[in-house]
Amino acid sequence: MTERIREFLRNRREDGPCVVVDLDVVRDNYHAFAHSLPDTRVFYAVKANPAPEILNLLAELGSSFDCASVAEIEMVLATGAGADRISFGNTIKKERDIARAFELGVRLFAVDCEAEVEKIARSAPGSRVFCRILCDGAGADWPLSRKFGCAPEMAPRVLELAHRLGLAAYGISFHVGSQQGNVDAWDSALGSAAAIFHDMAERGIQLSMVNMGGGFPAKYLKEMPGVPAYGEAIFRSLTRHFGNRLPETIIEPGRGMVGNAGLIEAEVVLISRKSDDDEVRWVYLDIGKFNGLAETMDEAIRYPILTDKDSDRKTPCVLAGPTCDSVDVLYEKTPYELPVSLAIGDKVLIEACGAYTTTYSSVAFNGFSPLASYVI
Amino acid sequence: MTERIREFLRNRREDGPCVVVDLDVVRDNYHAFAHSLPDTRVFYAVKANPAPEILNLLAELGSSFDCASVAEIEMVLATGAGADRISFGNTIKKERDIARAFELGVRLFAVDCEAEVEKIARSAPGSRVFCRILCDGAGADWPLSRKFGCAPEMAPRVLELAHRLGLAAYGISFHVGSQQGNVDAWDSALGSAAAIFHDMAERGIQLSMVNMGGGFPAKYLKEMPGVPAYGEAIFRSLTRHFGNRLPETIIEPGRGMVGNAGLIEAEVVLISRKSDDDEVRWVYLDIGKFNGLAETMDEAIRYPILTDKDSDRKTPCVLAGPTCDSVDVLYEKTPYELPVSLAIGDKVLIEACGAYTTTYSSVAFNGFSPLASYVI
Repeated sequence: MTERIREFLRNRREDGPCVVVDLDVVRDNYHAFAHSLPDTRVFYAVKANPAPEILNLLAELGSSFDCASVAEIEMVLATGAGADRISFGNTIKKERDIARAFELGVRLFAVDCEAEVEKIARSAPGSRVFCRILCDGAGADWPLSRKFGCAPEMAPRVLELAHRLGLAAYGISFHVGSQQGNVDAWDSALGSAAAIFHDMAERGIQLSMVNMGGGFPAKYLKEMPGVPAYGEAIFRSLTRHFGNRLPETIIEPGRGMVGNAGLIEAEVVLISRKSDDDEVRWVYLDIGKFNGLAETMDEAIRYPILTDKDSDRKTPCVLAGPTCDSVDVLYEKTPYELPVSLAIGDKVLIEACGAYTTTYSSVAFNGFSPLASYVI
Repeated sequence: MTERIREFLRNRREDGPCVVVDLDVVRDNYHAFAHSLPDTRVFYAVKANPAPEILNLLAELGSSFDCASVAEIEMVLATGAGADRISFGNTIKKERDIARAFELGVRLFAVDCEAEVEKIARSAPGSRVFCRILCDGAGADWPLSRKFGCAPEMAPRVLELAHRLGLAAYGISFHVGSQQGNVDAWDSALGSAAAIFHDMAERGIQLSMVNMGGGFPAKYLKEMPGVPAYGEAIFRSLTRHFGNRLPETIIEPGRGMVGNAGLIEAEVVLISRKSDDDEVRWVYLDIGKFNGLAETMDEAIRYPILTDKDSDRKTPCVLAGPTCDSVDVLYEKTPYELPVSLAIGDKVLIEACGAYTTTYSSVAFNGFSPLASYVI
C-alpha cells in the first residue's frame, strides 16, 4: 500500500472493486532487476499485466518484452519499442500468428518441438529460436506443469533441425516455476543448459543465449527473498556451469515486476454462518475467482488482506466471491483470520494484486463486470 | 451437432474458435422441462448463457428467469418479460443492488442468513423471500461447496425474521449439485423442505413455494437420464413428502437448458511429445481454460470431441489450451483418446458447450480474445 494508491482511493468515486497499480513501484522493480543482474536483458512478461501505462514505462526504461500472442506484440509495438525488443515466448503458436509476428518485425521465437521449428522455418525464415526445456519446478508456489518444454535430451535435435532449416539455433530457455521461493532453483536448469551448449558445440553449432524465464516472486503473506539474492545465486550458477564463457542471458519477470505494485480495493457484501454451531464465518466479497482473483485457485496464492479494523481480535473466516458459482471460494481449506468487528459494507484492501488479475477476469460471468483497473 | 450448426460453420469466414448455439435445441429443452414437470415454473438460470437470442426465445416460450446480478435482471427485462418473471437468486447481494432490483420491479429474492433478510427488508420492503438450505450434492459431477445455503435447522429462524420484518416468508430452495446424474437426488432435500414447511406452519407462517434449483445435466461423454426421468422422480418425491398439499414449485435449469445446444469449433495449434519415449501426445488447441473451457477445471466436465478422422486408430493425448499458463491444461489426469492422424491445423468440434463457456472467458488473458459466440 503506497501513499499514492491511498490518495487515489480516497478520491475515487466509482462503485465496485478495482485494482490500482503504482508505476513508481514498477520502476523500482525494474531497476532492482537491472542492477541485480546487470549483464542480463529484462524481457517483461506482458501477460502478467498488459496495461499500456506499464508497457510505456518499461519501454522507456529500456526493458524488452516477452509476448504470448500477436495481440501482446501489437501492444508492445504501440509503445514505440522496436520489434528487436520482443520475444514471441509462447511455444504454442498458430503458423499464421508466426507469420504475422514476422511481418511485424519479430525475429526471436520459442519452440519446444520439431513441429514448431518447421512452422517458424516456413513463416519466419532466418529467425532466432530458443528451445524450452522441462524443469521440475520444485520450490515454487505455483509450480508449472509439463505443458511447456521438452526433455533436455530432446533439445539438441530440435535445435539442430532449426539450424538445418536455416534458422539461428540461438539458445535454451526454461522456467523454474512461478513464485519460486528458492533462489538456487535456477542451478540445475542452468546445468542442463550448459550441457546442451556443449552438445551443440560438438555438432558444430554455437548457441548464444540462455533465457532463464520468470519465477521471481511477489511478496504475498509468506516472506520471500529479495531480487538481489536471486541475482547473486543466479550469477553463481551461471559461472559454475559456464565458467568464463558466460552466455547472453535473458530473464522474464512478470509477477516479480508488477505483483507488489498493485492493490485491490473490494467490499464486504455479506457475512454469515452456515449453522448455529459454526465457528467459522463466511465472508463474501464483491471480488472473487472470476473477476480478478483467479490465482486463489487451489489456494495457491495467499494475498495479504488489510482492513480498517486489523487491531481488533481476529477469528477464522472462509472467504468467497460474489458469483452464484460454488467454486468461487477464495480461502476455505486454510481459513483466513479477519477481525470480529468486520461488517457488511466495509472495504478491504488486497495487496500484491498487480499481476495476473486484470486480464484473468471473466468477460461477464454472472453479469459481473471485469475488474476495473487504474494505473497511476 | 445439428444440421443447422454444421451449415453455419461451413459458411463461417472469421478466424478463431467459436461457440454456435442452436435455438431449436433450446426450444426442445424448454418443452421437455415444461412437459416433464407440468405444474412447475421454469426459471432459466441466466448465468449459464445470457445471449440475448436465448433470453428472447425463452421469454417468448413463457419461461421465467433466475438472475445472479442486476446486469442479468436488466438483460431479462430487455426481452420484454415482466419483472414478475424474475427471481434474484443470488444469496449474496449488495444492498444497493437489492434496491436497484426492487426499483426495476423484482419482488422475489433468495436469502440464506439473517443479515441478507435485513437488507431485503430495508431495500425491497414487502418482497417474497425464499431461504436456501444446504444439500450434500452427492451424485453430482460438479458438486457444490457449502458456499450457498444454511443448515436446514437454521432456515425457520431466517424465515421467521423475514416475516417479522414485513417480508413474505415464501419458501425454501436448494440445489442438488450441478450435472446431477442421480434422478433421486432431490428426495432428501424435498424431505427437509417439507419439514421446514411443517415447522413454519406451527409458528403460524404458511410457506408457499419450493425452489428445486438446477442440477439437470447436459449429455457430455457419460450417459445421463433424460428430463422425463427427472420429472417423474421429482414428482414422486414431492408427493411422498408433501402428500396432497403440493407446494408451488420452481426449477432453475441452466446447463440442462442450453448445454447440449452449443458446439465449439476449435483448431489444433500444435501436436508434440515431451520426450522420445513419451507415449502420450500433447495436443494444443486454440481454446482452453481461459477462453471458454473453464469447466474442465479438475477435469470435472469431460466434453465429447469430434474430428474428421474419428474412424482412425486413437491413442491417448494430453489436451491443452493456447496460453502461456501452465494450468491451462484440459485433460491430463485422464488423457483423451484422439486419432493418430490428427494434424496441426485440423478442426475439432467440442460438443455440449452451450452452457458456462461464453461468459466464463477471460477478457484478454495472454492477449487472446474471449470466445466468439453465435446463436442461430
